[in-house]
Amino acid sequence: MSSEELNIKRKMARQNGIVQPLLTDLYQITMAYAYWKSGKVNDVAVFDLFFRTNPFQGEFTIFAGLEECLKFLENFHYSDSDIQYLQQTLPENIEPEFFAYLKDLTCKDIRVSAIEEGSVVFPRVPLLRVEGPLIVAQLLETTLLTLVNFASLMATNAARYRMVAGKNVSLLEFGLRRAQGPDGGLSASKYAYIGGFDGTSNVLAGKMFNIPVRGTHAHSFVTSFSTLDDLHSVIIRHAETQNSCNLLELSIEWRKRVSAVIDISPEEASDGELAALISYALAFPSGFLALVDTYDVKRSGLLNFCAVALALNDCGYRAGGIRIDSGDLAYLSVLARETFESIAEAFKLPWFSKLTIVASNDINEETILSLNEQGHKIDTFGIGTHLVTCQRQPALGCVYKLTEINGQPRIKLSQDVGKVTIPGHKEAYRLFGADGHALIDLLQRSSEPAPEVGQKVLCRHPFQESKRAYVIPSKVEHLYKVYWKDGIIHTMPKPLHEVRQRVQSSLRTLRQDIKRNLNPTPYKVAVSDDLYNFIHDLWLQNAPIGELS
Amino acid sequence: MSSEELNIKRKMARQNGIVQPLLTDLYQITMAYAYWKSGKVNDVAVFDLFFRTNPFQGEFTIFAGLEECLKFLENFHYSDSDIQYLQQTLPENIEPEFFAYLKDLTCKDIRVSAIEEGSVVFPRVPLLRVEGPLIVAQLLETTLLTLVNFASLMATNAARYRMVAGKNVSLLEFGLRRAQGPDGGLSASKYAYIGGFDGTSNVLAGKMFNIPVRGTHAHSFVTSFSTLDDLHSVIIRHAETQNSCNLLELSIEWRKRVSAVIDISPEEASDGELAALISYALAFPSGFLALVDTYDVKRSGLLNFCAVALALNDCGYRAGGIRIDSGDLAYLSVLARETFESIAEAFKLPWFSKLTIVASNDINEETILSLNEQGHKIDTFGIGTHLVTCQRQPALGCVYKLTEINGQPRIKLSQDVGKVTIPGHKEAYRLFGADGHALIDLLQRSSEPAPEVGQKVLCRHPFQESKRAYVIPSKVEHLYKVYWKDGIIHTMPKPLHEVRQRVQSSLRTLRQDIKRNLNPTPYKVAVSDDLYNFIHDLWLQNAPIGELS
Repeated sequence: MSSEELNIKRKMARQNGIVQPLLTDLYQITMAYAYWKSGKVNDVAVFDLFFRTNPFQGEFTIFAGLEECLKFLENFHYSDSDIQYLQQTLPENIEPEFFAYLKDLTCKDIRVSAIEEGSVVFPRVPLLRVEGPLIVAQLLETTLLTLVNFASLMATNAARYRMVAGKNVSLLEFGLRRAQGPDGGLSASKYAYIGGFDGTSNVLAGKMFNIPVRGTHAHSFVTSFSTLDDLHSVIIRHAETQNSCNLLELSIEWRKRVSAVIDISPEEASDGELAALISYALAFPSGFLALVDTYDVKRSGLLNFCAVALALNDCGYRAGGIRIDSGDLAYLSVLARETFESIAEAFKLPWFSKLTIVASNDINEETILSLNEQGHKIDTFGIGTHLVTCQRQPALGCVYKLTEINGQPRIKLSQDVGKVTIPGHKEAYRLFGADGHALIDLLQRSSEPAPEVGQKVLCRHPFQESKRAYVIPSKVEHLYKVYWKDGIIHTMPKPLHEVRQRVQSSLRTLRQDIKRNLNPTPYKVAVSDDLYNFIHDLWLQNAPIGELS
Repeated sequence: MSSEELNIKRKMARQNGIVQPLLTDLYQITMAYAYWKSGKVNDVAVFDLFFRTNPFQGEFTIFAGLEECLKFLENFHYSDSDIQYLQQTLPENIEPEFFAYLKDLTCKDIRVSAIEEGSVVFPRVPLLRVEGPLIVAQLLETTLLTLVNFASLMATNAARYRMVAGKNVSLLEFGLRRAQGPDGGLSASKYAYIGGFDGTSNVLAGKMFNIPVRGTHAHSFVTSFSTLDDLHSVIIRHAETQNSCNLLELSIEWRKRVSAVIDISPEEASDGELAALISYALAFPSGFLALVDTYDVKRSGLLNFCAVALALNDCGYRAGGIRIDSGDLAYLSVLARETFESIAEAFKLPWFSKLTIVASNDINEETILSLNEQGHKIDTFGIGTHLVTCQRQPALGCVYKLTEINGQPRIKLSQDVGKVTIPGHKEAYRLFGADGHALIDLLQRSSEPAPEVGQKVLCRHPFQESKRAYVIPSKVEHLYKVYWKDGIIHTMPKPLHEVRQRVQSSLRTLRQDIKRNLNPTPYKVAVSDDLYNFIHDLWLQNAPIGELS
C-alpha cells in the first residue's frame, strides 16, 4: 500500500470511530519512554490477554472484539496532533528523539495470535497472545483490553439470554437509551447480535453492521391522539382490488363484533388509542404491530388492536401482532393469545391465533426463566437496560500480562494464588470427547508437541498439585491462529453473521450442565505436566524466602 | 451560515463522534412516518425529559450531557446515505415524499429549555423541556436520552466518590479498559471529571476535553526487569550542577542505609524491581512515582522505592511517591507513611514524610468509607471499574414523555402511580431557606406567576392529597433557561471546568442529611396547588371507570 493510500485509510478509520493509539492509559506512554530511555527498544516480549473469572456467575464466556482489535492494529499511528499533545503533557525533560520514535511507530513487527472470534472461552486461557517489540506490545494493552472486555461481556450476556429464551423465541435489543453513551450503545447492539439476538432497535447499528432493525411505536404516539376526531385521514386502498376502504368505519364496526366475542364493552376502550392504532395501521398496514398497554391491555388495548387488525384484513392486509410493555407479562400474554384464538375461531381466521406477541418491560435472564415457568405466550422479547448495561456484572476483567521477555519467562506472583500468571510462550488446545463435547482446555509450553487424538495426556491443575487427570481426546483443536503478522491482517476475521453462527456452534460443544443458569458445573482448564513444572520452578526461583518473626 | 459551511460543520461533527440522527430507535422513525401520513406535520408538542428515581440509593442526581445534546441538535441532519438506508429498511409502500421531508428536516423549529448542566437535580423535575413540531421532537427522544442518561449517571457517581473521599484526597479515573468500549470510556472520563475527579488515565480524553492526565507504570514494567544487569544505563545529570550521578550505585548504597532504619534486609528486596525503579527514575526523575506492590510492599517495594528516591535526592530531584495496587490498603498506606516518616527523621529530609500515596485496587464508595474508618494514609485514589461501569446501578432511567400537544395537556396513566406523568407545559423553581439551603423543588403550570421571595407558597405532593406544606422562600431560582431556539444555541453551555465547579457549588446548597451515604433524607419535589388540581382533573377525565365483577 502506498503511504498516500495508508493515510486515506487511516483518515477513514478515524472517521468511523475513535479507536486510535491515544485511547490508552497514560502509563503505557510513560512506560514506553522509560523502556526507550533504558535501551530496551529492541527487547522482544510476549503478552497474554485473558480473564480470570467467567461473568454472570456462569461457567463460560464468549470471546468477541477481535475484528476491532485488528482494525486498531492496522491503523495504529500517532498523528502530528497526538505527538504535539504528548509533548505538552509529558514532563519537559523528555528527549525529543522519543517523539520522533513514536511518530514512526506502527504494528509491523507485532504478531497477534488469537482464538477465533465467537468461540466459547474459559478463565486463564489467553484470548490473544501478543508478541513483538516490548514497547509496542505494551502500548497496545489498554486499547486491546477496552475492545475485548466489553465486546466479550456483551456477547456472553446475549448468549445467556438466548439460552434461557430458547430457540423459538425472537430476541430484540432495545437498549440504546440506557447504554454508556452513543458508542456504548453501538457496541451493545453489535455484540448482542453476535451473541444470538435477532435484531436491534438501533438504526445506526443496523446501517453500520447490517443488523436487522425492528420497532413500532411508543406510548407517546398513542397519547398524542385524544379522540377519533384527531384522525385526519381514514382511507386505505385495498391491497389487491385497490378499492377505497374506510379503516375507521370498519374498525368501529369490528370493535363492536369483537367486543361481543371477548366480553369487553367498547365503551371501556379508549377512542384516542383506537385513533392512534388506525393512524399507525394506515402507515404500516402490512405486519401492523401495535403497543396495547397505554391505557389497559384487557379493557382497551387488545380490543382496539383486534378491531383494527380485522378491519385491515377486510382491506387485504394481515396484521403482525402486539407489544406489551408493562404489567404481568405471563398473564397478559396468555390473555392476548386466548383472545386471538377466540377471534380466530369466531371469525374463521386461523392465522389470527398466531399473531406475534412482543414483551418488553425491564426483562432480564431471571424474568425470562420465571416467565418460562409460568407458561407465557410471548414470541419476542425486547430487552434493553439489563442487556446493554450487563447489570448483573457490568465489566469483564480481562488483563494483559507479560509472560516472556527476550526469550526469558516472566511470572507475576501474588499473595492471591488466583492472580499468579502462567509464564512463557504457550499454546492452548481444546480436547474433545467421543461424544463431540469439549472435555478440557489444555495449556502447554509452545516447545511441547501438540496433544494427539487417541493418546493419553496428563492434564494438571495449574496450582493444586494433587488435581490431575488423564484425558484421551477424540479430537484436538489448536485454539490459536495468527491473525496479525508483518503489518497486515494474516487471517481475515469472519464477517458478523459468521461470528454469530460460530457462537451457537461453539456453545453446542459444551455440555448442558456447564451452560445451565443455576449452579453450572465448571469447565476445566489445565496445564501440561511440563508447563506445571515450569510454572512451579519459576515460582520458587522468584518468591523471596520469608522470615517468621 | 452558508450551506457549504454547514456541510463542513456537519462533516466535522461526524468525524468527532457518531451522534447523528440515525443513532436512534427505529420506532421513532416509524412513528414519524405515521404522524406524517396522518397529517400531523404541523402538530406542536411538548416533551419532558426526566427520571423517576435517584441512582445509587441516593437522594440526588447530577445533571450532565447538555452540551452534547446541543451539539446533536446543531448537527441534526439525515445524510443521503441515511435516507438511502431508511428507504431500504422501511416497508416498500412508504411514500417517497416522506423521505424528501426527512431529508430537509432540521431542529430550527425546536425549542429546548433545560436546567443548567452540573446542577443537582431530583426525580420528576424535567431536566429538558423540548417544544416544537411533534415529529421532530419525537425523533430526538432516543438520542437525547442516550446523551443525558449515561452522562448524568457518571457525573453523579463521581460526585458521590468525591463526597466520601473528602476534599483533601485526589481522585483519578482509571477505568478505560473496563468501560463500554472506546466511547463509553471517553464519556466516563469526561463526566467523572465533571463530577469532581481530578484527572484521568485516558490520554485521548485528556486531549479532547483538556482534562489532566495521570499515570506512571504497571506491574509488567517491573517484571520486565530480572536483575540489575538489565539496566543499560544508570547515569543521570544532577538537576543543578549537571554533574554525572550513578543512580545505581547511589540506590544500592541508600538501600543499605534505609534497610537499617526500617529493619528490612536488602536481601529480601527484589533486584529486578530495583532495576525497574531506577530505569523509571532515569526517565522521570522529577516527581518519580513508583508502583511498589509487584513483589511485596513491605519487604521489597517500599525499600526499593525509598532507596531510589533518596538517590534521586542526591542528584537534585525530589520524588513524588508510590502507588499500591493490591493488599490491605489501610494497613499498607499506614506502613508506607510510617516508613516515610522514619526516613524523613533519620536523614533529616522533612519533605519525605509528605510523599504521595496512591491506592488503586478495585475501589468503590464502600471501600473508601471503610478505609476512612480504619484511618488510612492515602492521598490519591485511582478508581476504575466501579466508577466507569457504575456497578451499583449501571443505568439512569431517564424517560421522555409527551405532556402537551397543540396546547392540550397529555397525561400518561399507569396502574403504578410512580409512572403517571405530570401533564402540561410547566416551569420548575427551586426554593431556598434563609440559611441558603435548597428547601424544595416546585413544579408549576407555566401560566402561573413565579413564586416570590418572602411570600407563602403552598407546595403539594403530586399524588398524595394530604401531603402539603407552606414554604416561604428566602430565594427563588427559576431552573430553566432556553438553550436552543430558532436553529441555534441560544444560551452557550458552560465550558467543562465551569460545569465541574457548578457541580460542587450546587451540591453545597443541599443539606448534609440529603447527601449522606447511609439512609439519606429525601429532598422534596412538589407541585403547586394549581398544578395539583390540573393533574387530578385530567386524570379523572382520562381514567376509565372500571366495573367490579
